[in-house]
Amino acid sequence: MADSRFFTRAGPFTVAEIAERTGATLGHGADPTRVLTDVAPLELAAAGDLSFLDNRKYVDSFVTSQAGAAFVRAELAARAPASMAALVAKDPYKAYARAAQAFYPDQRAPAGVAPTAVIDPSAKLGKEVSVGPYAVIGPGAEIGDRCRIGAHAVIEGGVVLAEDVRIESHCTLSHTFIGPRTRIFPGVRIGQDGFGFAPDPSGHVRVPQLGRVLIGADVEIGANTTIDRGAGPDTIVGDGTMIDNLVQIGHNVAVGRGCVLVAQVGVSGSTKLGDFVMAGGQAGLAGHLTVGSGARIAAKGGVMRDVPAGVTVCGFPAVPIAEFMRQVAVLQRLAKKRGE
Amino acid sequence: MADSRFFTRAGPFTVAEIAERTGATLGHGADPTRVLTDVAPLELAAAGDLSFLDNRKYVDSFVTSQAGAAFVRAELAARAPASMAALVAKDPYKAYARAAQAFYPDQRAPAGVAPTAVIDPSAKLGKEVSVGPYAVIGPGAEIGDRCRIGAHAVIEGGVVLAEDVRIESHCTLSHTFIGPRTRIFPGVRIGQDGFGFAPDPSGHVRVPQLGRVLIGADVEIGANTTIDRGAGPDTIVGDGTMIDNLVQIGHNVAVGRGCVLVAQVGVSGSTKLGDFVMAGGQAGLAGHLTVGSGARIAAKGGVMRDVPAGVTVCGFPAVPIAEFMRQVAVLQRLAKKRGE
Amino acid sequence: MADSRFFTRAGPFTVAEIAERTGATLGHGADPTRVLTDVAPLELAAAGDLSFLDNRKYVDSFVTSQAGAAFVRAELAARAPASMAALVAKDPYKAYARAAQAFYPDQRAPAGVAPTAVIDPSAKLGKEVSVGPYAVIGPGAEIGDRCRIGAHAVIEGGVVLAEDVRIESHCTLSHTFIGPRTRIFPGVRIGQDGFGFAPDPSGHVRVPQLGRVLIGADVEIGANTTIDRGAGPDTIVGDGTMIDNLVQIGHNVAVGRGCVLVAQVGVSGSTKLGDFVMAGGQAGLAGHLTVGSGARIAAKGGVMRDVPAGVTVCGFPAVPIAEFMRQVAVLQRLAKKRGE
Repeated sequence: MADSRFFTRAGPFTVAEIAERTGATLGHGADPTRVLTDVAPLELAAAGDLSFLDNRKYVDSFVTSQAGAAFVRAELAARAPASMAALVAKDPYKAYARAAQAFYPDQRAPAGVAPTAVIDPSAKLGKEVSVGPYAVIGPGAEIGDRCRIGAHAVIEGGVVLAEDVRIESHCTLSHTFIGPRTRIFPGVRIGQDGFGFAPDPSGHVRVPQLGRVLIGADVEIGANTTIDRGAGPDTIVGDGTMIDNLVQIGHNVAVGRGCVLVAQVGVSGSTKLGDFVMAGGQAGLAGHLTVGSGARIAAKGGVMRDVPAGVTVCGFPAVPIAEFMRQVAVLQRLAKKRGE
Repeated sequence: MADSRFFTRAGPFTVAEIAERTGATLGHGADPTRVLTDVAPLELAAAGDLSFLDNRKYVDSFVTSQAGAAFVRAELAARAPASMAALVAKDPYKAYARAAQAFYPDQRAPAGVAPTAVIDPSAKLGKEVSVGPYAVIGPGAEIGDRCRIGAHAVIEGGVVLAEDVRIESHCTLSHTFIGPRTRIFPGVRIGQDGFGFAPDPSGHVRVPQLGRVLIGADVEIGANTTIDRGAGPDTIVGDGTMIDNLVQIGHNVAVGRGCVLVAQVGVSGSTKLGDFVMAGGQAGLAGHLTVGSGARIAAKGGVMRDVPAGVTVCGFPAVPIAEFMRQVAVLQRLAKKRGE
Repeated sequence: MADSRFFTRAGPFTVAEIAERTGATLGHGADPTRVLTDVAPLELAAAGDLSFLDNRKYVDSFVTSQAGAAFVRAELAARAPASMAALVAKDPYKAYARAAQAFYPDQRAPAGVAPTAVIDPSAKLGKEVSVGPYAVIGPGAEIGDRCRIGAHAVIEGGVVLAEDVRIESHCTLSHTFIGPRTRIFPGVRIGQDGFGFAPDPSGHVRVPQLGRVLIGADVEIGANTTIDRGAGPDTIVGDGTMIDNLVQIGHNVAVGRGCVLVAQVGVSGSTKLGDFVMAGGQAGLAGHLTVGSGARIAAKGGVMRDVPAGVTVCGFPAVPIAEFMRQVAVLQRLAKKRGE
């Protein structure tokens, strides 16, 4: 059970209500009126708890679980113990995610503007906006309905937030448009000048960065991540993309829809990612590349050329993963020989 | 054209004025009185726009561009279309940078101290200083003429900024001297204790960090970068060095003049870089090394020993680039053989 | 001598007082009444300075040093020049660390709460707490005796700090318990949602992150580091662990006691580190791994499987260091052959 010091639980919900909210169907003999009060992992769950089995590896925990109900794929539903209502779902983890959102809904900040916020008279605030202590909102900024601006956030002049955007504490935003429901974690910097200059031994000459940052809907951007604005073109992050902490996005980069960039990834200037691209932790991409939709870059990979759609690459310089595996195998074999 | 929501354009300028500001000379038949109102890339430029050709690869765009004028190297100037005034420059990108600075001059923050700034009575502020909302300036700090301190910046006691320094929002500075015209991006941390302790199973013992950070003139330090102060010696960043976002500079490091450190680079304690050293994104340098002037470290390179002046290294452990290329080639060949 | 602009020196101390504070013993002929006024490295030290010889490599500097006293191992104490009082210690660097702490004790912030701090009436503050300008402390937070909260720090509702915790400027803490004497550097983000969602082409579904962050006693967490809260289990950092700048700790990670994580390390979700694990700069660990106590991960290493206790691994994918060295050697040999 989540610490009530930090989390407020909703519910309870019946098995039928959970099924309806998640699109799951009831397994054989499951009682729709059973009452569920919380979520818990299979091993810790008690009679009032809802759990899930996603990875077949944990089927033993499922069979012996005390959970009152659990999401499970159709082919394993029959393995549910008699005490458990099976909730059959195609994607049990996704169903669990939605159920957990029902039990622990996003806690709403109090609407209203903190008296210590500094808001330029020319800024426009929508309805039910929440602005935390010491936030600063510049001239001409537009803040959509129900946006929540955290303590100490700085929204510079002209920035536009659509509705339901959540900017957490200590963020800095400039030259930026942000789509609905997007969430920006603490300490993120968006819209500062890109790293653009003409190199010169007598003093590098800065090139004015005249673009913006366009962030789509339903995006998440993790703590202390940095996204520079474009040099002329815009820097773009597509709808539904998930960006983890401490990621660097250079100027003119375009990230497609539904991409996943894990912590400490770096994307160099002018590189374009298609949709649903995944990059593992600490992966790096050189500039001016094109990465096709559905491509995957393994953790720590260093991408020096274009990656075709759907291909998984690994290593430095990154190559298709089967090739990487052969490289690793041959090197280990040679090293072993030599060591003998 | 840059979004007028965020950018204010100056000008117009005649071709002759641009030539004078940038040191370019007029190509054959170029009209010095032609009026230019904006900058644009070759493909998008119209009759009133100024553009440039830097990379020979784009000569086709140059030949067909509608730009009213463009910077170009002497050997390609004759290829300019009849409608374009060629502005002959040795370094067209640098000339463009200066011209773009004329069209889009740095926007000055309003001079004056925000009423919410907390400034210690013993701090000294120069002329025309701008201090943003909620900035905090500690005892004995000295802020030079025309400095701009962003919202929420914290300048701790004793810190000295020369003239025209720009500290953006949410920065933390302590134990630091900063030279003229240097610009610190949002969320930068400078001058905190280095990572210094005597390891001990019964509890690592912190070693007081008694040095400072000395940052030169015309330096840029990117968003969320961290620069620790020295342990006894100082941590130093030389004039004109460009540091990107999320870079880590350890205690006692000395970075020379005109260096370029791309995003997410890490330089470990006590390592010394000469002048005009370049380090690509995510490169890392071990501690106590010496990297000669003009050396280059490729992106993701892991430097474990000294690098002589002028040498380019790559890979982990980093080796001269020709050797790295041979390693990659031999490994790919062996892996292919095995895969057959 | 440390810059008096930033540092306030205590003392002087006699050789006998220093010996007592550090557990060192006096070498042959050392005068216990000699007065020491400062610390300095061997080459720069004068008659009033205390220094140390830790690395045998610097024995020449020791023999010729003008230092009035120096910590040294027993076997080298006889090499001390006549003018120097030898202070014999098993670990001279640790003894020096303690002596330097005596000369440069931690500077205490003024106790008291800045008038601009926003503290919820339901928060509890201990005795002699210092709260800087514009800090924000949320409902139900508990701040232990003698804690110091820096300017602009945001301590969200329910967070608990034990006694003598130091939170520097611009930190964001939520869902977190912090043990005594722990120090959090500027710009650190602790307790935000982990990177947890059910991937889905029609929109990734966020999984509520219902755990907390539990940080032990005597921990240090470097500038701009990010530590996500657990998804259900807690994220844990053990007593005495030292974490450098720009480190990423994912949700559900457990870091043991006395670990050392150098700058830009990334630890993926649910990975467990034993006690006294060391990870060099920019090392990365995949998720759901176990790293045994005393294991060491070399800088830039990419750990893809469990690491047994006491083993040192290197490279990507990380292998035991002897194997890595053989791989490097065989590759260099093959590349050379081919280059000939």
